[in-house]
Amino acid sequence: AQMSLEQGYEARREFDARYRLLLRSVRDAIVFVSVNEGRIKDLNEPAAALLGSTREDLIGVSFAQEFRDRRRDEFIESLVNTAISESASGFDLQTKRGRQRIVITPNVFRAAGERVLICRLSTTDGASAAPDDLS
Amino acid sequence: AQMSLEQGYEARREFDARYRLLLRSVRDAIVFVSVNEGRIKDLNEPAAALLGSTREDLIGVSFAQEFRDRRRDEFIESLVNTAISESASGFDLQTKRGRQRIVITPNVFRAAGERVLICRLSTTDGASAAPDDLS
Repeated sequence: AQMSLEQGYEARREFDARYRLLLRSVRDAIVFVSVNEGRIKDLNEPAAALLGSTREDLIGVSFAQEFRDRRRDEFIESLVNTAISESASGFDLQTKRGRQRIVITPNVFRAAGERVLICRLSTTDGASAAPDDLS
Repeated sequence: AQMSLEQGYEARREFDARYRLLLRSVRDAIVFVSVNEGRIKDLNEPAAALLGSTREDLIGVSFAQEFRDRRRDEFIESLVNTAISESASGFDLQTKRGRQRIVITPNVFRAAGERVLICRLSTTDGASAAPDDLS
């Protein structure tokens, strides 16, 4: 039993590591948001760039606060509704810091007893903030 | 102590969930490869599409086998060397199934006592295989 507990533990440590590397390796701009608190749990550099700040400064802040004319509760509720709805259409917004028009494509999941939004951000011309090598 | 063990456990379950959702949400084509075995541990749909098969059929197979004229040990070693080297240049290849020219951008990390490669695949024109929503 101890053995399998340890194996489970090791397996989970591997997912932690995979998660971190994956978030760092992708060019898509990604933000994880707690549904209950409305706060940014994690994000990558392309997302921080789109929001006009740094990862360090954005982790823990209210996600709604990063956009113009958005009240927290309504905002998070709309993201959850968009995530749940069948229509895959995104969510049009303007960032507060950089006045950048972006689209959010949200997805919602449950983990460790709380609901978490994973949001893919892209500029309205479809490109992500990452220097894209599309020709 | 029990409390913090459980909290640690819950936290790790959350990383599992975040990992899975993240891999599914990104448009970048991503493949995780075991360095020791040279086998695909996990990949997403865009990566499977680029390799010309399905996720289910590709998990567990030798990564080198998916490319033309690549021998396993040399191939994995080259990917690790590219990952470690400072020069960020990619790795030019042709897929075996679709004869698709692609570039691999590898990164290496250690998790649960083994080394794992995370490879971002893109076509040589820079686009990923995912149906892109560029307008």
